[in-house]
Amino acid sequence: MRESVRGQVDPFIVMDVMDAAARAEAEGRHIIHMEVGQPGTPAPQGARDALARALTQPLGYTVALGLPRLRQGIAGLYRHWYGIDLDPARIVVTPGSSGAFILAFSALFDAGDRVAMGYPGYPSYRQILRAMSLQPVGIPTRAEDRYQPRPRDLPDAQGLILASPGNPSGTLLRKQELAALTRAAADKGMAVISDEIYHGLSYGQHCHTALEVTDEVFVINSFSKYFSMTGWRVGWMVVPETQIRTVERLAQNMFICPPHASQVAALAALECIDEAEANLSVYARNRELMLEGLPKAGFTRIAPPEGAFYIYADVSDLTDNSLEFCEEILAKAGVAVTPGLDFDPDRGARTLRFSYARATEDIVEGLARLQEFMSRR
Amino acid sequence: MRESVRGQVDPFIVMDVMDAAARAEAEGRHIIHMEVGQPGTPAPQGARDALARALTQPLGYTVALGLPRLRQGIAGLYRHWYGIDLDPARIVVTPGSSGAFILAFSALFDAGDRVAMGYPGYPSYRQILRAMSLQPVGIPTRAEDRYQPRPRDLPDAQGLILASPGNPSGTLLRKQELAALTRAAADKGMAVISDEIYHGLSYGQHCHTALEVTDEVFVINSFSKYFSMTGWRVGWMVVPETQIRTVERLAQNMFICPPHASQVAALAALECIDEAEANLSVYARNRELMLEGLPKAGFTRIAPPEGAFYIYADVSDLTDNSLEFCEEILAKAGVAVTPGLDFDPDRGARTLRFSYARATEDIVEGLARLQEFMSRR
Repeated sequence: MRESVRGQVDPFIVMDVMDAAARAEAEGRHIIHMEVGQPGTPAPQGARDALARALTQPLGYTVALGLPRLRQGIAGLYRHWYGIDLDPARIVVTPGSSGAFILAFSALFDAGDRVAMGYPGYPSYRQILRAMSLQPVGIPTRAEDRYQPRPRDLPDAQGLILASPGNPSGTLLRKQELAALTRAAADKGMAVISDEIYHGLSYGQHCHTALEVTDEVFVINSFSKYFSMTGWRVGWMVVPETQIRTVERLAQNMFICPPHASQVAALAALECIDEAEANLSVYARNRELMLEGLPKAGFTRIAPPEGAFYIYADVSDLTDNSLEFCEEILAKAGVAVTPGLDFDPDRGARTLRFSYARATEDIVEGLARLQEFMSRR
Repeated sequence: MRESVRGQVDPFIVMDVMDAAARAEAEGRHIIHMEVGQPGTPAPQGARDALARALTQPLGYTVALGLPRLRQGIAGLYRHWYGIDLDPARIVVTPGSSGAFILAFSALFDAGDRVAMGYPGYPSYRQILRAMSLQPVGIPTRAEDRYQPRPRDLPDAQGLILASPGNPSGTLLRKQELAALTRAAADKGMAVISDEIYHGLSYGQHCHTALEVTDEVFVINSFSKYFSMTGWRVGWMVVPETQIRTVERLAQNMFICPPHASQVAALAALECIDEAEANLSVYARNRELMLEGLPKAGFTRIAPPEGAFYIYADVSDLTDNSLEFCEEILAKAGVAVTPGLDFDPDRGARTLRFSYARATEDIVEGLARLQEFMSRR
């Protein structure tokens, strides 16, 4: 049977780690999961209660842009978080941030267009681009720039993806950096997509939205991380006013609507800030433990972990094969971590990503295992 | 800001009808909805009960291909419906059939490829294709062929979409027709995608899956229609064994996973065949009423309504502007129906689609209004 060229995207290497971890668990071993990019906590109680109450309703299709009350509620979050007044008409509820990327890329780019992003970065950016016949262009970033691109680094391309807090780096773009990058991109005729999925999860630094510096941007966010609703597949996108109709037509045809039950849960989640903040305080404690424990284990060259729930470590003093190193850590220490290859095809053979999204006791145990393993290596 | 060419897809004309109907309702008028392509019934009780019980679980990401038990359950449906033994490994759970189309088109076609389909047909086929830089090629079908393409009609193209029961026609492809069409497509090197989303909803004729005649096909289906779960956004796709890995990688990157809560509900829905069959008997009763009432109103030239919950009417003796005609029917009769333009850009100015998916009392009232309106026209 025929196969397309664009369908041949790279595998997620972390999936191989997860498979290996699952096999180890099936054999009776106890594994600490520092590979997974999702909270161990469920959706907020209020969100689940609201859905339980709504289960008597038909929950048929919603309008393509999402429940009007949910769009208004998200606008409220922008007032609360950033003090900005956002027209709910510009907010598009999407099937996860994944759906938002598909809509943004469809609205902005034609086959063959080039879209730039910092490396290391979220691997699905480049894979979704390839699947849509677009060309990802990696911008190698530097540790001294907190693994974020600089305006002078922008290549000739039609688009730019920014991510703050970054995955895997956890680093934040300052407001003036967002301003400089979006201005430089505009000067080069590049459309900017700002991935803000980890907003709300920061430790000291305030998360600034690109909307504070320009309206000419597609901002993508989700209920997955701060609201602990990964599997619910409900995200959102803020688009320039001129793009609302284009994105609406695309959403009508490509997705019909985001999952209705998840929208009901998400609407109620907006009222559960206390529970989200309680989760955040767990991550904050975990992060402290990681910052203390990882260097003790020998992982000393780490990016400033300003946000999200990741620590990105340069392990070039320890290995030049991060995949084998992860296999060794899993086999000998019983800790699953992610090789950097997913995030940086060029330099990721010498980096690791540690996630600290799970329960604090897991973090304590994982760090103890890593220290024991490294001391004997 | 930049805009892509491929992002400029056509609007759904039915949305304008729905907006007009909503405005009329806001003004206090009572409208009968024969425009909407979804059941008025909720998800099966057992599905909602199962989700209510599951709301204590985290419901995080599932694996990209969907819950293994759900894939096994869907394989069971293929034994039950068609008597075929299907490897669950070939079943991909998707975010609605919409997500399945995006995955299939990505796996099979590169930018510029041509994909053929019968006109009239589901409008999102051609819009999703355009958004992915693919070229839809309409095959004009004939009433005497039940609005289905014939093998001799196949153009030079890389792909072919079949739909049985068709939307808007409601007509079914016979098993030998499926065999002839898939064979002719294979001879021309075309990949075949068989849209079987209305399977289970037929009246006399048995719905045959393309998998009964070939394994070299992408079969797309969903919990939306037969199981009355439109807003849940959970569908599935059966792919050739050689394509599983390709589709898995695309699904990992483009969607991460289908909504977990919806998958839990869908798994339980598979045990609710009695409730689905009860819904079917309502559609069957509605269909009888429509077949009796529409000709009385003057809509006499209709496609054999063998399945789904639509009747497609040739109204060329009444109008050559179906959009204006729908506006008139809405304004004067208080019945919302869909102009054929969504389904057939060329000939749809002279056709209408009536949906009979709602409650029987609505059908009775709607038919009375249509008869009254047409008698005075």
